[in-house]
Amino acid sequence: MTALKNDIFLRALLKQPIDRTPVWMMRQAGRYLPEYRQVREQAGSFLNLCTNPELACEVTLQPLRRFKFDAAILFSDILTIPDAMGLGLYFSEGEGPQFKKTIKTAADIHALPIPDPHSELKYVVDAVSLIRKSLEGSVPLIGFSGSPWTLATYMVEGGSSKSFQKVKGLMFEQPILMHALLDKLAQSVAAYLNAQIAAGAQAVMLFDTWGGMLSTEDYNEFSLYYAKQIKSLLNDGPNGEKIPSILFTKGGGLWLETMVDAGYDALGLDWQTDIHNARSRVGDKVALQGNMDPVTLYANPEVITEKVKIVLEKYGKGSGHVFNLGHGILPDINPDHVKAMVDAVHTYSPAYHQ
Amino acid sequence: MTALKNDIFLRALLKQPIDRTPVWMMRQAGRYLPEYRQVREQAGSFLNLCTNPELACEVTLQPLRRFKFDAAILFSDILTIPDAMGLGLYFSEGEGPQFKKTIKTAADIHALPIPDPHSELKYVVDAVSLIRKSLEGSVPLIGFSGSPWTLATYMVEGGSSKSFQKVKGLMFEQPILMHALLDKLAQSVAAYLNAQIAAGAQAVMLFDTWGGMLSTEDYNEFSLYYAKQIKSLLNDGPNGEKIPSILFTKGGGLWLETMVDAGYDALGLDWQTDIHNARSRVGDKVALQGNMDPVTLYANPEVITEKVKIVLEKYGKGSGHVFNLGHGILPDINPDHVKAMVDAVHTYSPAYHQ
Repeated sequence: MTALKNDIFLRALLKQPIDRTPVWMMRQAGRYLPEYRQVREQAGSFLNLCTNPELACEVTLQPLRRFKFDAAILFSDILTIPDAMGLGLYFSEGEGPQFKKTIKTAADIHALPIPDPHSELKYVVDAVSLIRKSLEGSVPLIGFSGSPWTLATYMVEGGSSKSFQKVKGLMFEQPILMHALLDKLAQSVAAYLNAQIAAGAQAVMLFDTWGGMLSTEDYNEFSLYYAKQIKSLLNDGPNGEKIPSILFTKGGGLWLETMVDAGYDALGLDWQTDIHNARSRVGDKVALQGNMDPVTLYANPEVITEKVKIVLEKYGKGSGHVFNLGHGILPDINPDHVKAMVDAVHTYSPAYHQ
Repeated sequence: MTALKNDIFLRALLKQPIDRTPVWMMRQAGRYLPEYRQVREQAGSFLNLCTNPELACEVTLQPLRRFKFDAAILFSDILTIPDAMGLGLYFSEGEGPQFKKTIKTAADIHALPIPDPHSELKYVVDAVSLIRKSLEGSVPLIGFSGSPWTLATYMVEGGSSKSFQKVKGLMFEQPILMHALLDKLAQSVAAYLNAQIAAGAQAVMLFDTWGGMLSTEDYNEFSLYYAKQIKSLLNDGPNGEKIPSILFTKGGGLWLETMVDAGYDALGLDWQTDIHNARSRVGDKVALQGNMDPVTLYANPEVITEKVKIVLEKYGKGSGHVFNLGHGILPDINPDHVKAMVDAVHTYSPAYHQ
């Protein structure tokens, strides 16, 4: 493998000295880019795009050609694991992700296989290898997975949900069964992330998109517990190198102190969480990633620049901050506005690293 | 006016000694009750129901006939003020609230009137008077309003929103104009709540449903600032009695310490916020209302009872807790499950007041 030319993203996650704040963006490969929409159309469907390593590689690299991002992130979906378990992921227009089969009974849960990443999920592992090679050491590659709790919400609800009635019903009324499902998912996620690491992912991120819909005690028992288990199962890189890890629970700002105990190198912050306050709460234990309000990117470049400066100032001096949005970029953002954000991080962050 | 036979709700808000924890439920007058659905059908539309004081009174009283609740809450909509400002509130099937006119320009904002509660909103004031009289002193009556920020989101977006692009765009790019709108709304809300107090409301609650979609600094500047302003404008009751006030920001658990400074007697908590931790953060400064996960009510009565016990135990001993859900009851809950919740509060809370 080629030596890494820009490692400030990895160094920031490990709180090592750097000369400016690294920046990338959740969903940076996505619909706001016309060149993405073109490949997506060529692929015929979103799933075709995810399952074709060449096309997934192409869209992963697209944002890096436009913007001075400091990391690439594997283009994939968070629901690849339940799909590989045989639930039949599909997307109908304007409906979000859905599953043909849903999880209802103990028998459903016991019948679920732990997918072999090199078989059912080979297309992801192949995409990681290809992207890593294609990056030629320009920036590190982030692998990722949905968290067990977040995957379980889709598997039990059959798709997106507002109230999470079915999955919380299972959790409230049959907690042991819920744990059986989450345990299987945690083993699957760990194997999946380890396969991504073996194939070339240089950092990994766990997306707990729906952990914030739980009460504090349910979050600890049904989401964070499994995030911690996964972290304990993660391998080093193929050459023994450390693979920094990021845990992002959207809506988890209340729980940062306990999230620290899960052992990840960094926590992702949504935009509601004050990053200055967050830093004082977590101390030196973890790095922080985030957290500009994604809606800021609709505003004009002058406003965007000011908002970037506020986030940088709030984090303050020293390493340990990866600039990002507080959630994924929205699909109708003007790419010029992304450039304004990235440029502002490049211009104004060096002052915090002197 | 008749003397109040059950004042434990008011006493809990003021942290005065009581012998058990009071309980009521956000949206307790609502679709989960068959008798509500019958009146709603009779009214022809949700808006007809809101604007007819006799029918609004009837549905306000319905849950009190079934359950041992310790407070009634005015049946109304949070969007009565923008409607009275001339925006034309309507509800289309399955779409949520919408406005015929939306706020786009400085001219739109400057043209907005501050509604006279005794003219455009007379139907609300009349409903409050009628409900207060009909309660015959059984339990206190809560008046309420949407918060300025929450009202502004609907007025600028034209209805419900996921990303709040338009209203945040106004806030980011034209903050002075946004403040002009919010200031007008704060004056309108204060006048509206004072009219409800004069007509018989014995406590008031400000619903900041969408404050939790803001960053910390935007919440302080664009939501909490106006909640504080409103509180400072609220009157005592017609006989000089203190009117306890509750501020509820859904998603506001991160900000309790600063919310305390707004001067309300109590803070409402969503279910994500740990009420034990919240109590230790706010100390003796405010009472707390909440905060069982509303989805718990789908579970069987045994589970509901256990979850009630957890919330009571987390708050702990002493006055200052009003039991409630962490958000409104969902429309398809079995009323028997509500009874299980209320009964559990009656059974298990006295131990915390000895």
